[in-house]
Amino acid sequence: MLINCVAYQNGRKLADIPVDQIHLFVHEPDCFVWVALGDPEPAELEVMQSEFGLHELAVEDARHGHQRPKIEEYGESLFVVLQMIEPSDGDLNVGEVAIFVVKNYVLSVRSRAKRGFTDVRERCEKEPELLRHGPGYVLYALMDAVVDRYFPILDAVETELENVEERIFANQAVRANIEALYGLKQKLMVLKHAAEPLLEATSKLFGGRVPAICVGLQDYFRDVYDHLVRLNQSIDSQRDMVTTAITVNLSLIALQEGEVTKRLAAYAALVAVPTMIVGVYGMNFDYMPELRSPYGYPVTLGVIAAIDAYLFYRFRKSGWL
Amino acid sequence: MLINCVAYQNGRKLADIPVDQIHLFVHEPDCFVWVALGDPEPAELEVMQSEFGLHELAVEDARHGHQRPKIEEYGESLFVVLQMIEPSDGDLNVGEVAIFVVKNYVLSVRSRAKRGFTDVRERCEKEPELLRHGPGYVLYALMDAVVDRYFPILDAVETELENVEERIFANQAVRANIEALYGLKQKLMVLKHAAEPLLEATSKLFGGRVPAICVGLQDYFRDVYDHLVRLNQSIDSQRDMVTTAITVNLSLIALQEGEVTKRLAAYAALVAVPTMIVGVYGMNFDYMPELRSPYGYPVTLGVIAAIDAYLFYRFRKSGWL
Amino acid sequence: MLINCVAYQNGRKLADIPVDQIHLFVHEPDCFVWVALGDPEPAELEVMQSEFGLHELAVEDARHGHQRPKIEEYGESLFVVLQMIEPSDGDLNVGEVAIFVVKNYVLSVRSRAKRGFTDVRERCEKEPELLRHGPGYVLYALMDAVVDRYFPILDAVETELENVEERIFANQAVRANIEALYGLKQKLMVLKHAAEPLLEATSKLFGGRVPAICVGLQDYFRDVYDHLVRLNQSIDSQRDMVTTAITVNLSLIALQEGEVTKRLAAYAALVAVPTMIVGVYGMNFDYMPELRSPYGYPVTLGVIAAIDAYLFYRFRKSGWL
Amino acid sequence: MLINCVAYQNGRKLADIPVDQIHLFVHEPDCFVWVALGDPEPAELEVMQSEFGLHELAVEDARHGHQRPKIEEYGESLFVVLQMIEPSDGDLNVGEVAIFVVKNYVLSVRSRAKRGFTDVRERCEKEPELLRHGPGYVLYALMDAVVDRYFPILDAVETELENVEERIFANQAVRANIEALYGLKQKLMVLKHAAEPLLEATSKLFGGRVPAICVGLQDYFRDVYDHLVRLNQSIDSQRDMVTTAITVNLSLIALQEGEVTKRLAAYAALVAVPTMIVGVYGMNFDYMPELRSPYGYPVTLGVIAAIDAYLFYRFRKSGWL
Amino acid sequence: MLINCVAYQNGRKLADIPVDQIHLFVHEPDCFVWVALGDPEPAELEVMQSEFGLHELAVEDARHGHQRPKIEEYGESLFVVLQMIEPSDGDLNVGEVAIFVVKNYVLSVRSRAKRGFTDVRERCEKEPELLRHGPGYVLYALMDAVVDRYFPILDAVETELENVEERIFANQAVRANIEALYGLKQKLMVLKHAAEPLLEATSKLFGGRVPAICVGLQDYFRDVYDHLVRLNQSIDSQRDMVTTAITVNLSLIALQEGEVTKRLAAYAALVAVPTMIVGVYGMNFDYMPELRSPYGYPVTLGVIAAIDAYLFYRFRKSGWL
Repeated sequence: MLINCVAYQNGRKLADIPVDQIHLFVHEPDCFVWVALGDPEPAELEVMQSEFGLHELAVEDARHGHQRPKIEEYGESLFVVLQMIEPSDGDLNVGEVAIFVVKNYVLSVRSRAKRGFTDVRERCEKEPELLRHGPGYVLYALMDAVVDRYFPILDAVETELENVEERIFANQAVRANIEALYGLKQKLMVLKHAAEPLLEATSKLFGGRVPAICVGLQDYFRDVYDHLVRLNQSIDSQRDMVTTAITVNLSLIALQEGEVTKRLAAYAALVAVPTMIVGVYGMNFDYMPELRSPYGYPVTLGVIAAIDAYLFYRFRKSGWL
Repeated sequence: MLINCVAYQNGRKLADIPVDQIHLFVHEPDCFVWVALGDPEPAELEVMQSEFGLHELAVEDARHGHQRPKIEEYGESLFVVLQMIEPSDGDLNVGEVAIFVVKNYVLSVRSRAKRGFTDVRERCEKEPELLRHGPGYVLYALMDAVVDRYFPILDAVETELENVEERIFANQAVRANIEALYGLKQKLMVLKHAAEPLLEATSKLFGGRVPAICVGLQDYFRDVYDHLVRLNQSIDSQRDMVTTAITVNLSLIALQEGEVTKRLAAYAALVAVPTMIVGVYGMNFDYMPELRSPYGYPVTLGVIAAIDAYLFYRFRKSGWL
Repeated sequence: MLINCVAYQNGRKLADIPVDQIHLFVHEPDCFVWVALGDPEPAELEVMQSEFGLHELAVEDARHGHQRPKIEEYGESLFVVLQMIEPSDGDLNVGEVAIFVVKNYVLSVRSRAKRGFTDVRERCEKEPELLRHGPGYVLYALMDAVVDRYFPILDAVETELENVEERIFANQAVRANIEALYGLKQKLMVLKHAAEPLLEATSKLFGGRVPAICVGLQDYFRDVYDHLVRLNQSIDSQRDMVTTAITVNLSLIALQEGEVTKRLAAYAALVAVPTMIVGVYGMNFDYMPELRSPYGYPVTLGVIAAIDAYLFYRFRKSGWL
Repeated sequence: MLINCVAYQNGRKLADIPVDQIHLFVHEPDCFVWVALGDPEPAELEVMQSEFGLHELAVEDARHGHQRPKIEEYGESLFVVLQMIEPSDGDLNVGEVAIFVVKNYVLSVRSRAKRGFTDVRERCEKEPELLRHGPGYVLYALMDAVVDRYFPILDAVETELENVEERIFANQAVRANIEALYGLKQKLMVLKHAAEPLLEATSKLFGGRVPAICVGLQDYFRDVYDHLVRLNQSIDSQRDMVTTAITVNLSLIALQEGEVTKRLAAYAALVAVPTMIVGVYGMNFDYMPELRSPYGYPVTLGVIAAIDAYLFYRFRKSGWL
Repeated sequence: MLINCVAYQNGRKLADIPVDQIHLFVHEPDCFVWVALGDPEPAELEVMQSEFGLHELAVEDARHGHQRPKIEEYGESLFVVLQMIEPSDGDLNVGEVAIFVVKNYVLSVRSRAKRGFTDVRERCEKEPELLRHGPGYVLYALMDAVVDRYFPILDAVETELENVEERIFANQAVRANIEALYGLKQKLMVLKHAAEPLLEATSKLFGGRVPAICVGLQDYFRDVYDHLVRLNQSIDSQRDMVTTAITVNLSLIALQEGEVTKRLAAYAALVAVPTMIVGVYGMNFDYMPELRSPYGYPVTLGVIAAIDAYLFYRFRKSGWL
């Protein structure tokens, strides 16, 4: 589905143009075309391939989807794949945007993701002095947007982890916590898969030799790289904390089981001791003076109550009850 | 066992040829011979060695089998070993294909694997414009096929892991889950052994200096490399998740044991308290007014029933029963 | 909030100057201006940006805060971000100082941190022979101060870990220990985030090519680097020890539960055996000679007491009680 | 102890020679001497040192033994230390062979190892066209032999691990399994110590600049390297599996304890419920009609039997018994 | 405290000299001065600093102590810090030696360590042909001595680990074992902190460009490096084994608890079954023929004994008792 097809000159929007006029604009001086497709049909991609002369393997990747994030050079053009991660029903949905960047056009192909890049385009159009850098700047703007969208996802994971931590130390919902921690680990894995491969790839856009398209924009790509480093570091820390939380949780389960055992044992004692005593007076010896006394029964009950009261006091004092 | 022996010119099949005519074709211009052997006898390999002048150490490796995946240069020729992984009875069978690639012939030797490469050959023959790249392209096609066949194996592992996860959190088949997780870890190990060594080896076929045979095909080998990176990353994630699942499972076992302990204790209480009470009235004191009352017995039974009902209600309410 | 704005010449303080006179001093020979801001308003930063011609992305980073520690070159100037870690209510507060270093001025922007750098400035002013190195030396002095302030934090963590260790092996406050260990792990994470990225960044200030501003000060930056290496190593060791302590704690919990089980079982035996014996003499057989004997009852009680005494002795001896 | 001292020319054995004639042969063209010592006296080593002019530090290492595996260049000569691992009484015995390789002699010093290298020498003598490569080839042959001997050791470990795995999942010999897994981990450590340092050392014998003695034999040393890579990878996998097996075993122990708890609880119920019921009829109420009935006793016994039968059926059905 | 101050020429001791004559000797040809300080006063260090012109930052480090091991170049001089580890009351005491090496003098400053380097000096003076290499050789001799002293420490740790292992598998002193393992981990950490940083530092003294002072001594420093590699590897292995031992210990604790549970349950059964039976004959039914029989009581006791004997036999057979 074609979302946008716009021609720009000197960083300013010229016009929305139909796809079949792209070739008219890409050869104008200081002019470039920025096309956005969403979940395209194979036919649409083929049109773009022939219109822009895109490399077969790159188009293949964009068509198949489910690629790892990467930045590849095909001659003078760049092929970039980014994963778009969106929360959906408590789970994470992994979409994808494939970006073809050439000297005078940019093609972004978004797949399986709800949120588009209209906001990015609008922001770019408001800063013509930056957009005149051309397709390289568009690439930066898209990458920056995708990476920035990872942070709220990670923040949500962090918040959830904090909630689980609280519940763990409050001994609440133990089973649900374990499941939640496992789910958090899975989400962090998804984020890691999106962010880590990008880290190394992005580093090639600002240090040493950079693709011609990115020349002059190194500071910007270093900024994206910086965000990715921070993201990766946070992901790793949180993965570590989740693992620690799982272990700590196990300790707390073991500990709580010990506490339950003690409490049960205390109650058992409160029942077993009287049972033993009443057993004594259930014996059938002919000569048991207590049995004959009119106070035997009430005194025995009283002694039993006293013993239990004492035991209860001791158990309570030592924290078993 | 000879499977195929075909001569190609300019990417098109010339003819099936007998082994002893290979030397006639390998010196023709734009011509190359593609031979496929399956579980060959030592004698067959020797014929090939003398026919093609293969390096002794490489032939030795192909004969012995059980090599690690690798790509070695012997002068101008390449010797490639790939592991072929096939599911068999819930387990993974590890076969091998050794590929000798020289300027104008390709020899693939498949061992201990059921599925061959007829489909690869057919696809190659349908695209003569690619096959005319010669033996390098055949190598790419074989590597691509082998690597692509890893993915369904990994997907099966992933599906099985998801099933185990579900059963873990549903508290079903605990013992079987542990065994399944251990088995998954073993399978991931097998996959890792196949994919990881290949990763580094493949990287030498497209970046910087590449073997002469692979020149012009770098984008293709980078594509294979890319698949391998993705594969390796998925393997690592799943290994991590399996380890986490084992730990989580241990927590759940501990947790469930705690729950069972509580349930048992609750039932024990329902039996122990009545036992204590009936013990009281089993005492032989002369003066126990309740024993004399005609209502003593039914009231005692009623009190016992009431106490148990109350305990049952409390246990149920606090989740112990 | 402007904290300080001072002009220096040849390492000696010239005067406190108002912000709008900065440009008069930065072009004097051997002269530089050192400005310190604290939690600045956006407007204050804008003034500095235009006054000093700071790079937009760097100013953006300083404004947003929550950056990872880093050292970036923008042309001939350096942009440095350091995290300031301060204890606050048993937790760690993470502030930040962003430092812009150019040939003849230094701007430090402190955010969300209580303790400033007045002591650093004073020490610098006491050593004019060092301060005459200019902005590079100020950068060193600030980095040295920030890194030195990490050590007492780490020492506090170490002391707390030692306390927890003692309590663990003394079997005290088990639940609190687990929570404390988890908290220590989080604190070490915070320290690691502050120190680790700085390690690599600092290494670029003394080995091989160094930014012009740092030339002649390599030995000093190597000293900072050295402290960071030591810090990182200590953090890693302590993280490792915390993890080990958590595992060891789990073992001790399991062990103690086993000991409690044994103690409970011993007490249960002291009650169950008498219950069995008195049950025997509660039987209603017509012919039970003991029942008829006047010594039956006291002897039985004596035997029960003897058995319990013996059991108690045995349990005590084998360490169950 | 002198084991062998043989002079070779053009790859063919000339003669067994006495030690004091070595210097006569080492200066002949295309001639080299191969000396083998076993657990030598210090005096024997001194003779060799002066005869061959060996470097003091290398001789010191050979004398002391207990070196890590390594390959060191001393000027134009090579000093190689390999660990020889031999099974002995279920444990692994670590011996050592130190090899001095110079242009026209090889000295191998074997220590604390039973099996020698007679077979290697014989095989070399059968292939004079390879042996004429000189001392470098002898080095290859010795390294190849030592590394090849690691594989059966590792295979034995693998087999033992498989046996333990089977016993683990069959719930047999739990304590012995834990001890066996710990022992396997120790053995894998021994193997790792032998193989890992060699990996890096060997890599210097075939890639880039290689010692003069190894020139022309790079393909052979790459083959040894390849075996070492495979070995190391297998060791790492098995170490990982042993760790996983230990964890899995812990889960199974916890699980089995839970099962035992349930079974015990079931049996306890089968005893406790009758105890409660008979307690009821042990009460001494005057008015308990059942006590008067001639069927009271048999009916009670029958009811008890029925309840226990029902409980037994329920427990069996839910898998507790 | 000044320990030694000796002038050497051509590797032979000239004389013990007073500190204020050092400058007379350091300019003699082939002459160098070797000064040793122990826990020096700040004033002593200042004398040395001015006498030898030492770099301020290095002196600062020597004064403060508690540095990480390192080798730093200050111009043509070397500044080396080594940690000295000495056992003290079952714990490890970490001292330090800082070594300043210049063309014609060596200053070693030992802090917080009992054992000095008199033996090193004596050995050096016995080998004048080596000592004539000058200060570089003294550095080697000191480093060699310090590193060699790590080995008995590590051996002691290893022996202790073996003792703990034995006790673990013999089920003895479980609590003490856990504490011992934790202590071993801490000791290994101390050793690692001493040895690991030195590894990388030492590697700069023999490969590629080496400091002028070390030229000609590369083989010696490589030997030190080699020892460090071996040390580090052993430390890592033992850390790994300690971690494994902790886990294995946890398994054994869990296992033993299971065994105790079984034993307790068996004993409980031996008491509970008789209790149930005697309860039967405590019932007050009018019609219970057994009660009337003169053999009722002895037969009942006999049956109870028989049942317990049978149960005991079964429990013993199945390993519960």
